[in-house]
Amino acid sequence: MDAIDIITAKRDGAELTREQIDRVIAGYADGSGISDEQMAALCMAIVWRGMTRAEVAHWTEAMLDSGDRLDLAGLDRPTTDKHSTGGVGDKITLPLTPAVVACGAAVPQLSGRGLGHTGGTLDKLESIPGWRADLSPERLRGQLREVGGAVCAAGPGLAPADRRLYALRDVTGTVESIPLIAASIMSKKLAEGTGALVLDVKVGSGAFMKDVESARELARVMVDIGTDHKVRTRALLTAMDTPLGRAVGNALEVEEALEVLAGGGPEDVVRLTVELGREMLEAAGLSGAKDPADALADGTAMDAWRAMVAAQGGDPDAPLPQAKEQGEVLAPASGVLASVDAHAVGIAAWRLGAGRARKEDAVSPGAGVVLHAKPGERVRAGRPLFTLHTDDPTRFRAAAEALTGAAKLQPAGAESLPLIIDRVEAPTG
Amino acid sequence: MDAIDIITAKRDGAELTREQIDRVIAGYADGSGISDEQMAALCMAIVWRGMTRAEVAHWTEAMLDSGDRLDLAGLDRPTTDKHSTGGVGDKITLPLTPAVVACGAAVPQLSGRGLGHTGGTLDKLESIPGWRADLSPERLRGQLREVGGAVCAAGPGLAPADRRLYALRDVTGTVESIPLIAASIMSKKLAEGTGALVLDVKVGSGAFMKDVESARELARVMVDIGTDHKVRTRALLTAMDTPLGRAVGNALEVEEALEVLAGGGPEDVVRLTVELGREMLEAAGLSGAKDPADALADGTAMDAWRAMVAAQGGDPDAPLPQAKEQGEVLAPASGVLASVDAHAVGIAAWRLGAGRARKEDAVSPGAGVVLHAKPGERVRAGRPLFTLHTDDPTRFRAAAEALTGAAKLQPAGAESLPLIIDRVEAPTG
Repeated sequence: MDAIDIITAKRDGAELTREQIDRVIAGYADGSGISDEQMAALCMAIVWRGMTRAEVAHWTEAMLDSGDRLDLAGLDRPTTDKHSTGGVGDKITLPLTPAVVACGAAVPQLSGRGLGHTGGTLDKLESIPGWRADLSPERLRGQLREVGGAVCAAGPGLAPADRRLYALRDVTGTVESIPLIAASIMSKKLAEGTGALVLDVKVGSGAFMKDVESARELARVMVDIGTDHKVRTRALLTAMDTPLGRAVGNALEVEEALEVLAGGGPEDVVRLTVELGREMLEAAGLSGAKDPADALADGTAMDAWRAMVAAQGGDPDAPLPQAKEQGEVLAPASGVLASVDAHAVGIAAWRLGAGRARKEDAVSPGAGVVLHAKPGERVRAGRPLFTLHTDDPTRFRAAAEALTGAAKLQPAGAESLPLIIDRVEAPTG
Repeated sequence: MDAIDIITAKRDGAELTREQIDRVIAGYADGSGISDEQMAALCMAIVWRGMTRAEVAHWTEAMLDSGDRLDLAGLDRPTTDKHSTGGVGDKITLPLTPAVVACGAAVPQLSGRGLGHTGGTLDKLESIPGWRADLSPERLRGQLREVGGAVCAAGPGLAPADRRLYALRDVTGTVESIPLIAASIMSKKLAEGTGALVLDVKVGSGAFMKDVESARELARVMVDIGTDHKVRTRALLTAMDTPLGRAVGNALEVEEALEVLAGGGPEDVVRLTVELGREMLEAAGLSGAKDPADALADGTAMDAWRAMVAAQGGDPDAPLPQAKEQGEVLAPASGVLASVDAHAVGIAAWRLGAGRARKEDAVSPGAGVVLHAKPGERVRAGRPLFTLHTDDPTRFRAAAEALTGAAKLQPAGAESLPLIIDRVEAPTG
């Protein structure tokens, strides 16, 4: 292969062939054929020129081919999964997976750990005493058969080319490419072998996609990739200008998820859980089955949760870890809350210890931020607006700084995005 | 420095500051601060977004600062130089330098070796028995004082950042950026310390710039850089659709240069030598001095040539090397020649051994192509069109293949470019 020919073709706006893409990805995965500097130049050319639907499909396929694919054939139920592009307080996977399991689907959720200001689902679950994220493919299949659902770590054998490529993009200013983001997400999701997939594409200050147009484009490209790989895929665009729910942090979010599984919890978390659950079931061909709202109300979702946690060594009855110190941020004036900036809350939680700056850092399970009011609710001057949780009280100041101006009162405040902004699926027929 | 911030700024279309550019180039030259993959991504972003006049000036300055600059102060004559972007049969430096020296200027010509289908001036001169390309800065200054002119190799200390950067661009598809090309050429030319500079920007099939628009843009950017660095700089756009003169190859071109220095030689070589010489003298403030045409006619250019060759160890009277084997390509039909494709002739000469594929290859001094007719001249079926010279007769076939269809007869042929297409200089005032 002449890597330079492929780089210059993309640079000059040509469409890369399947063979060229196969050579690039395979040559990069095994360290031959294309060097880091060549791949960096190619990625920047892709940021510039974009990729066609066919190119993105081939790119994703080549990354899939670089590793293993789980085989989930032989289950007695259809499989369906959800992926979120990441948001502040996004604990939806926790109530959603057992709710959908309780409605009759199998849910193989291969998740990641958090980096930066949006938390990772595995970090949240690891705050449950005894719970282990690692499942071998055999144990995952067994758990899906016996319990119906599993949230576990994606092993290093799934889409290893994506792993190496993402690390390169991270240091070369080439993360911000919708086709590359879409191929990265979808190669991991397709490798897990699900038959149906619902994408929750977050939009707003706390999300990677800041505007609706980019989010819709990302959703469209990912739905196309899934469709081209024969996975029934659809996407919801959902609001991430305000944190989801009232809790941001690992154990704090598990606690909130337990409220939802017990039939209560914040309205936005419940609504998104139910809507995404319905989409997952419909995509799996189970739209006539039980409704996720009923599974939350009648306790069957909670039963599924307890079984899932126990199957991975967790004690569903053990008390969750709490942070050593609490502090409060008070409302500076009275009025109706217009908005709470998701990004600011994410940064505050991260500074309190809930997130990590580098992959090798540990997270503090109890750290985070609790909101005392959501947009539309009344606040009073001098009363708590946020409670900060941390093991290290020297962090209060930096966290409080991040929250300065994060909560805006009406009428000066901006309009919030509606919780569910749009829905994207493949054209039928 | 955060290299990623600089890459993303350029990717998003921002103008880089002087400080950012200094950090990138200095950090790249000493191997700290910015990695190869980051520099590759940045170069592709520059191919995409371009650079402003201020950015190109800073980029060039930073590359100059990465190494030594020759100090040519203290000569009794003004310095002036020429740089060609490279063409097939472009031996102009050989008669031009002594002609301009004979008219009263000092000419410090730091040149390179050839790579690919356009030959290098040093390769041509090295076909003269005994001639040596390497001059220390002290010897170069001495030779300029005593003889007035020198064509020699640019030492490794001049613009070393450009050397490393060019090698990277070469393998990452990022050569094709007018600001990066301009900064690369100008950083080397400004490092040699000339007071005036004439750029010969070649256009056509045998040149790097295939169209007049790109060539004019490159000329404009280089003239701006020179002007911003207080070097009186101007550019001619000249034709490279047909080879210059009749000889293409190292010793073959020296022979043709000697014909020009003896007052004869092909009309296009003579005319370009005279025009470029006048520009060099005018830029040096010597427009009232002797005319280069007179220096060629009265033998003073030849005297300067002999002195320059001898000063670098060459024997101006020694016979030039000849290739072991000659072959001929015959005219397939009779008629008037409309065009001779420069690129095809360059490739043929390269295949015969006149050029190198890799930097470490040796060139064959006697190899090359001689044209029996130039556009506008009559050819007869079955008579020689090209004579091929090589030390390795197995190469005839590949060279002849390259020449298939290279010579076109009227009236089917395309129009040739005029020899001198345009002239670019800094606006006065």
